[in-house]
Amino acid sequence: MIFLDYASATPVLESVKKAMTPYLSEIFFNPSAPYLPAKHAREDYEKAKADLAHTIGSKGDDLIITSGATEANNLAFTAVPENSTVLVLETEHASVLNLGKKYEAKLIKVDKNGRIDLEDFKKHLTDKVGFISVALANNELGTIQPLAEIAELIRKERENRLLNNNPLPIIFHSDASQALNLVPISVARLGVDLLTINSAKVYGPKGVGALYQGHRINLKPISECGGQEKGLRSGTENVAGLVGFAKAAEETKAHQNGNRKHYEKLRKILKDELKKSEIEPIFLGSEKYQLANFCPVSFPGVDAERLIFRLEEDEIYLSTGAACSASKGEPSHVLKAIGLTDQEIEGSLRISLGKDNTEEDMHIAGQKIVEAVKKELQFSL
Amino acid sequence: MIFLDYASATPVLESVKKAMTPYLSEIFFNPSAPYLPAKHAREDYEKAKADLAHTIGSKGDDLIITSGATEANNLAFTAVPENSTVLVLETEHASVLNLGKKYEAKLIKVDKNGRIDLEDFKKHLTDKVGFISVALANNELGTIQPLAEIAELIRKERENRLLNNNPLPIIFHSDASQALNLVPISVARLGVDLLTINSAKVYGPKGVGALYQGHRINLKPISECGGQEKGLRSGTENVAGLVGFAKAAEETKAHQNGNRKHYEKLRKILKDELKKSEIEPIFLGSEKYQLANFCPVSFPGVDAERLIFRLEEDEIYLSTGAACSASKGEPSHVLKAIGLTDQEIEGSLRISLGKDNTEEDMHIAGQKIVEAVKKELQFSL
Repeated sequence: MIFLDYASATPVLESVKKAMTPYLSEIFFNPSAPYLPAKHAREDYEKAKADLAHTIGSKGDDLIITSGATEANNLAFTAVPENSTVLVLETEHASVLNLGKKYEAKLIKVDKNGRIDLEDFKKHLTDKVGFISVALANNELGTIQPLAEIAELIRKERENRLLNNNPLPIIFHSDASQALNLVPISVARLGVDLLTINSAKVYGPKGVGALYQGHRINLKPISECGGQEKGLRSGTENVAGLVGFAKAAEETKAHQNGNRKHYEKLRKILKDELKKSEIEPIFLGSEKYQLANFCPVSFPGVDAERLIFRLEEDEIYLSTGAACSASKGEPSHVLKAIGLTDQEIEGSLRISLGKDNTEEDMHIAGQKIVEAVKKELQFSL
Repeated sequence: MIFLDYASATPVLESVKKAMTPYLSEIFFNPSAPYLPAKHAREDYEKAKADLAHTIGSKGDDLIITSGATEANNLAFTAVPENSTVLVLETEHASVLNLGKKYEAKLIKVDKNGRIDLEDFKKHLTDKVGFISVALANNELGTIQPLAEIAELIRKERENRLLNNNPLPIIFHSDASQALNLVPISVARLGVDLLTINSAKVYGPKGVGALYQGHRINLKPISECGGQEKGLRSGTENVAGLVGFAKAAEETKAHQNGNRKHYEKLRKILKDELKKSEIEPIFLGSEKYQLANFCPVSFPGVDAERLIFRLEEDEIYLSTGAACSASKGEPSHVLKAIGLTDQEIEGSLRISLGKDNTEEDMHIAGQKIVEAVKKELQFSL
């Protein structure tokens, strides 16, 4: 099998499984219980939190552990200041887009590579704006956003407000779920106030995520209970899950440079295979601003859904876009936003590489995709 | 080590770990992805949901999978009809009590065994009541509530409303987290509209729970995203977690009768050991209405916190109450509700038995507790 949809899910690393296992049975204690083994579980939990925080350049106290990116995004949006304008990039993940809708968010445009249109952003950055959400890397194109540049514009607007006695804060949130794999993250350098990360995208267990909460950022609890996670996210702590997430994030960080080069090489092989033939692939996004494991591509005139079924027979697995949106059969809002025609969108595959892909896989997958596209083009002629 | 705090946490069964493992690595696919292996993951997820639902006499479609009991309770309370009165038992878990506060809930009294005071309930069951939450079994005393009797009173009130053209619905919720271990559950027989269950309390993985949603009960989404779990609880599905939960619930159900008898025997041995001496334990609750693995007990005049530290030296681990509340050092609202004096509350232990406890453990633990209480009593003389 050749799996080319690592953006939708990643297998748990052996080392991660090994790190988690003791916390399922031997060290199963409730971290809030009063006896020594439970206190050790608490220590291990806090240690894992600190380790995880360290991978994004923050401290354990700044993280709120959640059941995933969606919950973290929901928690982030509780920081929206009252009666303020919310800005959201038009290519955000469904979870952020839907949250944005709740707050009647204004959408910021992207260019043809899916990068934020900074002029459009400046235009929207009025003195009414209280909350901005821009994903560090897009989940369909892999496009990396210039968060530091955005943060700089926000800093200037904050200065203006200080001068004009405008007390409205601006809170800058970013969903870094896809980016964590391949982009070195430092919350300070990125200039974000809130950052979402997700275990399931970095070869950790599913059902665990976290929200980085900058100092002086007020969040509201999204669940009521015993008051865990600073009262913001109650419920007995998932120690095994967090230990797994922390281990996965550390492994990811340790191999980030090597992985990036490896994926760049694999992507080149794949693209070369696709370009060899006369099927004229359109590669989406720009490699300059793209996660190295992303290779989104369009074959106009082809029905990508049919391609997926054809390739499935060769045990090559890929998708047309974000799993949660694509399963509803709606055309991708991301591909629309970068100006693709309906035909180009219909012919688009989201190829995303991962740890088990080899150079040989790329040759095979490339050739099989070409074959499948050719068959489909004959079919549609 | 002798662990006597299974009400706070349970280790994951070997069979459960085995069931979960393939879903961490080999079958890691996103259930919403379009290719065959992902569709199989979807099938396994739905199968696990159906299996889990079956253990409480419902169908998979009626379950919403959450990250635990707290989230399930939070989701349940979204069903509170507008401008209606909420009733909550005064001994509910912190999660339900705090939710109740949000809705200015009225508290229903319990008797000295922690059973609902049905007369008080009747008095409160006015034509304004829209939502009622009563845990099937209490998490500190193990007291089992007569849900069917409560449901019958609710049914009568519904009839009244029909006659009086009162369109206000009454929604009946129960948190069955503690009960699932030892009480055979059928949502139809219990007469509940919403039921919370929790994997972490039945030897399944932490971080997974579920809410049973009766037909025609409207819930509001607690998170925005791709629309998983009927749009009520979005985020990529935790397949391994649910598979583990389903397996744990099935094992629990299969061994329920045997376990109940086993725990009754163990509890008798423990109580006999405690009664042998002149330390005069007060056993809390009534065995007639109590989970068989619960043995809450008070030693008036003793500081239970100190007892816990003493027993810790003998590797005997127990707590004074619910982990999330007890860790805050507040006196238990449950023990207050059953009319205990401050001194009795201060001397209370929550002993809860579980799968690794043996008859010999009970003898040893009983003797060690007696020893520790004696030392403390000497100390305080």
